[in-house]
Amino acid sequence: MSIRQLPSAGFSITVRVSLPADAGAIGRLTTAVGEAGGIVTALDVVSSDHKNVVVDITCDTSDSGHAEQIAQILGELPGVSVRKVSDRTFLLHLGGKVEVTSKVSLRNRDELSRAYTPGVARVCMAIAENPEDARRLTIKRNTVAVVTDGSAVLGLGNIGPAAALPVMEGKAALFKRFGGVDAWPVCLDTQDTDEIVNIVAAIAPVYGGINLEDIAAPRCFEIEERLRERLDIPVFHDDQHGTAIVVLAALTNALRVVDKRIEDVRVVVSGAGAAGTAIMKLLLKQGVGDIIACDRAGALHRGMEFNGRESWKWLAENTNRDDFSGSLKGALVGSDVFIGVSAPNLLEGADIAKMAPDPIVFALANPDPEINPMEAAEHAAIVATGRSDQPNQINNVLAFPGVFRGMLDAQATEWTDAAALAAAQAIADVVGADKVNPSVIVPSVFDPHVSPAVADAVKKALLAGREQTPSR
Amino acid sequence: MSIRQLPSAGFSITVRVSLPADAGAIGRLTTAVGEAGGIVTALDVVSSDHKNVVVDITCDTSDSGHAEQIAQILGELPGVSVRKVSDRTFLLHLGGKVEVTSKVSLRNRDELSRAYTPGVARVCMAIAENPEDARRLTIKRNTVAVVTDGSAVLGLGNIGPAAALPVMEGKAALFKRFGGVDAWPVCLDTQDTDEIVNIVAAIAPVYGGINLEDIAAPRCFEIEERLRERLDIPVFHDDQHGTAIVVLAALTNALRVVDKRIEDVRVVVSGAGAAGTAIMKLLLKQGVGDIIACDRAGALHRGMEFNGRESWKWLAENTNRDDFSGSLKGALVGSDVFIGVSAPNLLEGADIAKMAPDPIVFALANPDPEINPMEAAEHAAIVATGRSDQPNQINNVLAFPGVFRGMLDAQATEWTDAAALAAAQAIADVVGADKVNPSVIVPSVFDPHVSPAVADAVKKALLAGREQTPSR
Repeated sequence: MSIRQLPSAGFSITVRVSLPADAGAIGRLTTAVGEAGGIVTALDVVSSDHKNVVVDITCDTSDSGHAEQIAQILGELPGVSVRKVSDRTFLLHLGGKVEVTSKVSLRNRDELSRAYTPGVARVCMAIAENPEDARRLTIKRNTVAVVTDGSAVLGLGNIGPAAALPVMEGKAALFKRFGGVDAWPVCLDTQDTDEIVNIVAAIAPVYGGINLEDIAAPRCFEIEERLRERLDIPVFHDDQHGTAIVVLAALTNALRVVDKRIEDVRVVVSGAGAAGTAIMKLLLKQGVGDIIACDRAGALHRGMEFNGRESWKWLAENTNRDDFSGSLKGALVGSDVFIGVSAPNLLEGADIAKMAPDPIVFALANPDPEINPMEAAEHAAIVATGRSDQPNQINNVLAFPGVFRGMLDAQATEWTDAAALAAAQAIADVVGADKVNPSVIVPSVFDPHVSPAVADAVKKALLAGREQTPSR
Repeated sequence: MSIRQLPSAGFSITVRVSLPADAGAIGRLTTAVGEAGGIVTALDVVSSDHKNVVVDITCDTSDSGHAEQIAQILGELPGVSVRKVSDRTFLLHLGGKVEVTSKVSLRNRDELSRAYTPGVARVCMAIAENPEDARRLTIKRNTVAVVTDGSAVLGLGNIGPAAALPVMEGKAALFKRFGGVDAWPVCLDTQDTDEIVNIVAAIAPVYGGINLEDIAAPRCFEIEERLRERLDIPVFHDDQHGTAIVVLAALTNALRVVDKRIEDVRVVVSGAGAAGTAIMKLLLKQGVGDIIACDRAGALHRGMEFNGRESWKWLAENTNRDDFSGSLKGALVGSDVFIGVSAPNLLEGADIAKMAPDPIVFALANPDPEINPMEAAEHAAIVATGRSDQPNQINNVLAFPGVFRGMLDAQATEWTDAAALAAAQAIADVVGADKVNPSVIVPSVFDPHVSPAVADAVKKALLAGREQTPSR
C-alpha cells in the first residue's frame, strides 16, 4: 500500500559515467534515467576525446534503493561504465551544517582588549551585579538550545544523540534562515528523565529559550513540565506545540473552505502520542466541538484502563463527549475531520466516504500517510499531508522560527496557550480568508510573510499575557 | 603599590560634549584629557552653529574610575557641558559576540530537502550504523565546548555562570579568529563536581574536544581527571595547560637569552593552584633542574601537613629536592627563575637581587603582578607579565587556538603531555633562537605563524602518540 515518493532533491545523486562519443549516447543516458523514474536535473561534460566522453549526470530519485537502481541501470547500458556515484545530500553534510562565527572584529590589540581581557571584566561585573543585563550584553538575547536525547528522531526511532545531530544542525540552520535566531544543538547522551531535566536546567544561563526536539513520549511530557516549573525562560517541545500550531492553522483555513465553524465539528485524531496530545489540547483551547482520540487500541474513553498513562486518562476525561468506544474506523463515521499523526495505511477511501459531508483529512504520518492522499482526495473536500510532494504540506518550519523570534523579542519567561493560538491564527491569515482553496490551506514555507507574522503575533500575545499575570 | 595600568582600548569611552565655538575650545578638551592621563583616539564633530559645537571625543583610559574622572574633568571646563558618556566596550557587547550561522544555503525546496527532511534521514542512519561518521558528517569535526561553572572567572572570582558568559563568548570568538575552531559557550548553573562531570559527559556527542575554563581549584583537577577517563575526546583545562604551555615556551626562550640549560635551573613557583600546578608538572616533564613550590604558607615540602590537598602532597613529593622549608622570599635566594601565578605585590627589587645571576622573573598575577615589573627589571635579566602594556606578555591566546586546531585535525581521543611539550616548543620556535632578546621571548598574539605552528606540532605529537599506544 505504500506509495512511492516522487523523486526529490533529498535523494539527488550525481553519477559519473564514461560512454562512447556517438551522437545518441547522452540521449540514451537521460532516457534511461527517465524510464527508471528519476528526474535529470543537470548534465555536465567532464572530459571528452574522439572516442569517449565522461559525463556527470545528476538526477533526483525517490529513495536510496531507487538511487542505487538508477546507477545500476546506467552501468548496464551498452558501452557505458559508471566511475563514481556521489550522493549530493552526503556531500552537503561534510563537516556539518552550522558554524560559530564572531560578531566582533579582532584585528588588533585594541579590539582584543574590548572583546576579551581586560575590557570584558567590566561587562562580567555588570551582569554579576544586575543579572537581567545578560539579556542585553550576551548571546542569551537571541539564542536557543535545540535539545534532544535522540530517542524519537524523525520517523527513525531511538537512534541516539550522535545520529540525531544532523537533524538538530538542520533545525539550527532553519532557525537562522527563517527566524534570525541563533540555535545550538544539544544532543544528550542520556535518556533518563531526571538527568535530562537537570542538564537542561544547568545549561540554561546561555539561552533565551529551550526547544525540545525528538524526545519520545511520554517522557517528553514530564521533561517539559518540570523544566517549565524550574526555568525562567520558555520551554517549547516542537514535536508537540509546533505541530499543533500548524495543524490548527491548516484546520482554520480548511474550515473556511468547507464553511464550517470549529465549534460545530467533531475531529477524530489517530495517535495519542506527543504530537496528537498537543494537537488535541490546542483544539480544545480553540473551542472545537468534540474530539475522539484513537490509539492502537481504538478510541480513548472514560471506561477504559489507562495503566498509568496519565496523558491518556486526561484525554479520555476531556474529549469524546458521548464516550464512544470502538475502532478508529468506527469513530470516523459521521465525523467532520480526520487528523492522523500515527502510522501508515490505516484507512481506505471507503472510510472517508462514511464521514460527514465535506470531510477534511490530515494524514500526517511520515513518510507514508495514514491513507494514500490520492485515494483520500476522491472522497474528501480537503487533504493535507506531511509530504513535500503533495499539496497542503503541514510543516513545522511554518511555526518554530517565528515562535522563537517572538519569544526572544518579548524576553518571555514562559510559553502560553494564548501565544500558540495567536501563532496558528497568524499562519492561517497569511493565506487569508479570500485566498484559501482546497489546495492552499497553509502558506509555503518560503513565504517571507510567515515568520514575521508569527513572531509579531507571539510577541504580542506573550507581552499581553505578562500584563495580565504580572508575576509568578 | 599597585601600578596604574597604561590607558587601554579596553577602557575606551566616547564623551559627547557641547562647547563654545571659539578657536581654542577643542584644543582645551584634548589637553584636558591628556593632562588627566587619558589618550585621545578620535574626535568627531557631531554638529555646529555660530555659537556652539557638539563633539564626540573618544579616549582610552586606565580603568573605570579613570574614565569617570575624565568625563568629570571635561564637564568642569568653562562653557563645556557633557551630554553623554558611552563606554565602547559595552557598546561592543550589545547582543553578544558570537552567532550561529548556516553553512548551507536554504533558498528553495531542493536545498531544504537535502539539509533537512527527507534527505537528512539518510545521514542520520549512516551515523547510527557507523558512529565514527559523526566526525565526517556533523559539526563534531570542528567544534569544541568552552565549559565553565563561573567559579573562578578571570581575577573576578566566583561570579556565576551568567556573568561568566562574556568571557566564554570572547574565548569562542578567539577560537574562530586564531584557530578556525567552532567553539560554543557552556555556562553551567551548578558547582557540584559530580553534576559537572555528568553534564559534560552527556553533552559530549556534539563536540570534538572539551575546553574547561575558569573552574576553581582543586575541583578543576578532579573534573578534568574524571572526564578524561569517561570521554573519547580530549579534555583540556586552559587555565592549567594553556598557561603551562605558554610559560614553558617563554621560559625556553628566556633560558636561551641568559644561556642556561633547563636541567640546571631552580625555579620558584608562587601559587600552587590550577595554573601553578600545571606549570610545575610540565616543567618536570621537560626535565627542569629543581622546583620549589610556594603557596600562602611558604614552600611545599615533605614534612608538612597537607590536610587532604592531594595536589600539594604530590608536588611536595616530586619537587623541592633539598626539602627547603621557609618563605617564598627565602626560596628565591640563589634561585634562577621566579614564576608567579598568585597575588599582587609579594616581592620587591631586593628579593630579585638575591637570586642567582641573570634572574628570570615571570610575574603573572593579573592585573597587578607579584612585583612591579619596572622594579623587577632593575635586577632581573628578563621580566614577563600577563599585562598587555608590558613587554613579554604571557597570554594563553598563543596556545589554545592552535592546540584545539591540532587536536581536531588529529581526531584525537585524548590530550597528552607530549603534545603540550610540542606546543610549547612550537611557540618558542616562532620567535626563533636567533631572534630572542630580553624583550621578545614570546611572539605577538597577532603573529600569524603561531597558531598554525602550534596546530602542526600538536597534531604530529598526538598522531605519533596514537601509534605508540594503539588502543586504550
